[in-house]
Amino acid sequence: MLLETIEKENDIKKIPLEQMPVLAQEIRDFLLESLSKTGGHLASNLGAVELTMALHYVFSLPKDKIIWDVGHQSYTHKILTGRKDGFKNLRQYGGLSGFPKREESPCDAYDTGHSSTSISAGVGYVCASKVSGEEYHVVSVIGDGALTGGMAYEALNNAASLNKNFVIVLNDNKMSISENVGGISSYLSNLRTAESYTDLKSEVKKTLNKVPGIGPVMVQRIHKTKDSIKQLMIPGMFFEDMGIKYLGPVNGHDCGRMIQIFQEAKKVNGPVLVHVQTEKGRGYEPARKHPARFHGTSAFNLEHGIPLKTGGKANYTDIFSTVMLKLADRIPNLVALTAAMPDGTGLKRFRNRFPQRFFDVGIAEEHAVTCAAGMALGGMIPVVAIYSSFLQRAVDQIIEDVCLQNLHVIFAIDRAGLVGSDGETHQGCFDLSYLSMIPNMTVLAPKNKWELSDMLKFAVRYQGPIAIRYPRGEAYDGLEEYREPMVYGKSELIFEGEETALLSVGSMVETAVEVREKLKADKINATLVNARFIKPLDTKILDRLALKHKKIVTMEENVKNGGFGMAVSEYMQEYHPEVKVQIIALPDAFITHGNPKLLKAKAGIDADSIYGAIKEAEKR
Amino acid sequence: MLLETIEKENDIKKIPLEQMPVLAQEIRDFLLESLSKTGGHLASNLGAVELTMALHYVFSLPKDKIIWDVGHQSYTHKILTGRKDGFKNLRQYGGLSGFPKREESPCDAYDTGHSSTSISAGVGYVCASKVSGEEYHVVSVIGDGALTGGMAYEALNNAASLNKNFVIVLNDNKMSISENVGGISSYLSNLRTAESYTDLKSEVKKTLNKVPGIGPVMVQRIHKTKDSIKQLMIPGMFFEDMGIKYLGPVNGHDCGRMIQIFQEAKKVNGPVLVHVQTEKGRGYEPARKHPARFHGTSAFNLEHGIPLKTGGKANYTDIFSTVMLKLADRIPNLVALTAAMPDGTGLKRFRNRFPQRFFDVGIAEEHAVTCAAGMALGGMIPVVAIYSSFLQRAVDQIIEDVCLQNLHVIFAIDRAGLVGSDGETHQGCFDLSYLSMIPNMTVLAPKNKWELSDMLKFAVRYQGPIAIRYPRGEAYDGLEEYREPMVYGKSELIFEGEETALLSVGSMVETAVEVREKLKADKINATLVNARFIKPLDTKILDRLALKHKKIVTMEENVKNGGFGMAVSEYMQEYHPEVKVQIIALPDAFITHGNPKLLKAKAGIDADSIYGAIKEAEKR
Repeated sequence: MLLETIEKENDIKKIPLEQMPVLAQEIRDFLLESLSKTGGHLASNLGAVELTMALHYVFSLPKDKIIWDVGHQSYTHKILTGRKDGFKNLRQYGGLSGFPKREESPCDAYDTGHSSTSISAGVGYVCASKVSGEEYHVVSVIGDGALTGGMAYEALNNAASLNKNFVIVLNDNKMSISENVGGISSYLSNLRTAESYTDLKSEVKKTLNKVPGIGPVMVQRIHKTKDSIKQLMIPGMFFEDMGIKYLGPVNGHDCGRMIQIFQEAKKVNGPVLVHVQTEKGRGYEPARKHPARFHGTSAFNLEHGIPLKTGGKANYTDIFSTVMLKLADRIPNLVALTAAMPDGTGLKRFRNRFPQRFFDVGIAEEHAVTCAAGMALGGMIPVVAIYSSFLQRAVDQIIEDVCLQNLHVIFAIDRAGLVGSDGETHQGCFDLSYLSMIPNMTVLAPKNKWELSDMLKFAVRYQGPIAIRYPRGEAYDGLEEYREPMVYGKSELIFEGEETALLSVGSMVETAVEVREKLKADKINATLVNARFIKPLDTKILDRLALKHKKIVTMEENVKNGGFGMAVSEYMQEYHPEVKVQIIALPDAFITHGNPKLLKAKAGIDADSIYGAIKEAEKR
Repeated sequence: MLLETIEKENDIKKIPLEQMPVLAQEIRDFLLESLSKTGGHLASNLGAVELTMALHYVFSLPKDKIIWDVGHQSYTHKILTGRKDGFKNLRQYGGLSGFPKREESPCDAYDTGHSSTSISAGVGYVCASKVSGEEYHVVSVIGDGALTGGMAYEALNNAASLNKNFVIVLNDNKMSISENVGGISSYLSNLRTAESYTDLKSEVKKTLNKVPGIGPVMVQRIHKTKDSIKQLMIPGMFFEDMGIKYLGPVNGHDCGRMIQIFQEAKKVNGPVLVHVQTEKGRGYEPARKHPARFHGTSAFNLEHGIPLKTGGKANYTDIFSTVMLKLADRIPNLVALTAAMPDGTGLKRFRNRFPQRFFDVGIAEEHAVTCAAGMALGGMIPVVAIYSSFLQRAVDQIIEDVCLQNLHVIFAIDRAGLVGSDGETHQGCFDLSYLSMIPNMTVLAPKNKWELSDMLKFAVRYQGPIAIRYPRGEAYDGLEEYREPMVYGKSELIFEGEETALLSVGSMVETAVEVREKLKADKINATLVNARFIKPLDTKILDRLALKHKKIVTMEENVKNGGFGMAVSEYMQEYHPEVKVQIIALPDAFITHGNPKLLKAKAGIDADSIYGAIKEAEKR
């Protein structure tokens, strides 16, 4: 096994060039074998095997800096830098992260997770090296999907002014998680079909040689073939005109050719973009055919490519998906937007049923939100479905475009709270805070699957900016019998007890039920309230609770600062200082990857921890 | 006067084409006369006179939608839609806004203020009209500066897929507020020097006619003249390749030509970009020569172009500017970044003295922050100077790139709190909230000019993400004798009294001094604490205050949700419930334009209001 000879970074350089295809196959076999057991990002990693090998062959780690955009395609990079053994615990608590992590290896130059940041970070490194005089190469590897994100373009614009080597590798697989969309995709597809520079001369020759006579006729001919000529002559002209040298396109599964071109790129005294064409899921038929399904996969049967575990309860995404169809059936101006996540958000069915009212804007959360504002002004009811941690990208647009204009835009925020194996960058820990601070905003969270449905219907009837946040994974199907009609600003009293009230937000209602049972064993008959509204705060229920409770315990899957508990505490402090408020929230820290149940326990927001915290507070 | 015949939208259509230059001159005269008295955005409006006239001539308002990017160039639009008389109260409380406002006129299709949103909003309108079947034209007018903002590109990418008319007017004046920077600027400059389509044929003819003989020689020649040929043949190819038709460039001060080209653009069944070249400050020599100074100006002497009011106290921007120079002198790895605001942030002097360590990244706040993270990893100490409301654009990057990696990046946040005449979109009301929610972040605010200097020096020594927020305008120069050394997490006790403690953040310390005087008259000797640190919270001072105070009044120029007062309230509620906390903060509402003093009174955060609120609370 060649792979066994690679124990650390740069070991790959000892392997003869002609052996590269063998090594590539071994890496693919290893990835398939390993990920079929642990799950993980499969398709993108299968596509980036040779590309990563070529980069490691040409550049020297950790001196040179390779920045992986998004970072889920960095598995081969991890294998080649001595972390092969870590794959058995991939994305498990305490195990190898699914993304680059500087704390794992000095060869990880930059932590990523969100899209389109690699060129910016690369520009930063290059600028720093100019000031410090330290000599190293900087390589940013960005997918064509990530290139639909605006900040990548901000960075390209800035990179153009660098007068120092900076290599941008465009890993072009024609995909985001799903099919790539929009103009840049068309632009790249024109480049793909173009011949490379080296073929230019002969091609032009051929064309012109066919021209029989003199100037004017030729001009006609050129005019007619304008389209093909512009493709033939100047692939990457946009990049070149910006001041970024363009090399390619090159076959991203031909290691030798890539090594050549990277060596060339390394010599350029300025920014250079290498256009590499790869195939998502390369080498594994099921992943090649269904790259979206194999983007991030759970454990699967290697032979047939079928997930080992299927079924289980419906998750919130499914509920959202179904309710959207029902609503759209009867509301003709309901439209849906996603930022490159038709699968993940559950909007794929909406797209199939209502293609005219579905808008995939690419990895472009900022644009999605402002575009929705425009749609609302044009008489639509837009539902913007974006994950909690990605919606952080659009805070300014939520403030300035939606809330300032007080427009009826519905935010469907999936993956709110702890998401698990994707870790720090994907946890949805801040949305209650960044949404609650905005005037005109209404923020909701459902306790169970039926309530998500009720809240969506409520949001459609409501006039104004409104957000519903719900967690990843299986939807809670308890408390079915508690389904009081939604009233604006009003929470739901589920069990009326005394002394202690549990005031719980969304996913934490299920936990509160458990906590209540534990308290019962201590002969405490706690009240349980489902907050429903994080903003506006239901002060009436607080006044009511103050009458016969000594203590309110708030629970939320969000950081404490700016969250629900703080608002409750502040109100009680002002109007009912005799009532104690205990806030259960996520700690003021970034939370690593791992099983969500375990993470909740570690973060102190599972039922045992909360029960313990309540008991502990009593002692004081 | 032609201008007098224009009382409402579409009146301009009654004016004969050949009279347009006369009208343009009248509008310029009016703008100069009016703005020399009130101040306002001069240079950009002088540049957009004919462009606006041509748009109003070709399109029908309010049916058609014109969306003005940023919006400060919409003065002629306001004049042509019946708001001429409003200019005497421009940007004053209750008067005409300096930006488009739907509540002012049905001809304002979209409220703007922040950059690069117009294409997104336009795409939204176009998509809505497709679903609703309502027929109207949508025009987004965007500057070349705004085109450096990433979301404009996200929107272009999305616009390319529209199969319905959508006109994007690129108002290209080679400027943001200051000179435009980066690759897109180079790209546009190539377009500028290109001949328009109509001239293509003759140019190519000329070139080819000079070629003496046959194929191969010609190829050589073509090869050599590649640069000029690509410019000649295909201006706007990037846009065209994306799927956006490109028309232009056209002289933006030739009304007739623009009317022609807009009429042509109107017929395109899809997205079309019209490249218009204008001159900032056109028609007024001082503004033409110093467009940055006349971007937003106070009242000025019309004859000499000199501001009427000069001098006054130093403002915080000046202090920042000076201290940065001093620090950079002795710290070789201190670098500074701005997002197209070298003047506004005070970094111009830094740029002039340390050009190698200064980075203007264009209107690109997201990129600025991530780029700074890269620089920090490369061994620099980056200071990112961005206004409070614009930093909202980079919340995700502050979280994921800076704080998650726990990097030493310094945020210098000017214009925090109420900024005055620019109004809603520019008020810095949220930064304490969106920064405090982030793990690893430290947030500071100085009480006076000396403290800003001390805090900057402290921030440079500190290791980790750290933000300093300070307000627009004159720096407070009171309390000079109170200058305790900065200690991490420690607030500053200024006057020790009893019963009531005023715990104040940054700009509100000055107000607290006034409030304290008012309380003194009532024989109340209030304690005054300068918070210094918003995050982490100085709980030690709170414990100490609890010993001999019955009440703490917190004061901040930020919304209450997620702000400083909430954190104090929550701590006191938990540990010192016997102490009352009264929070003085901005209301949960968007705050309009007007004189900052007046706005503070209206918002209840001036000394009189706060004194009144304290008295009121005592009665309860």
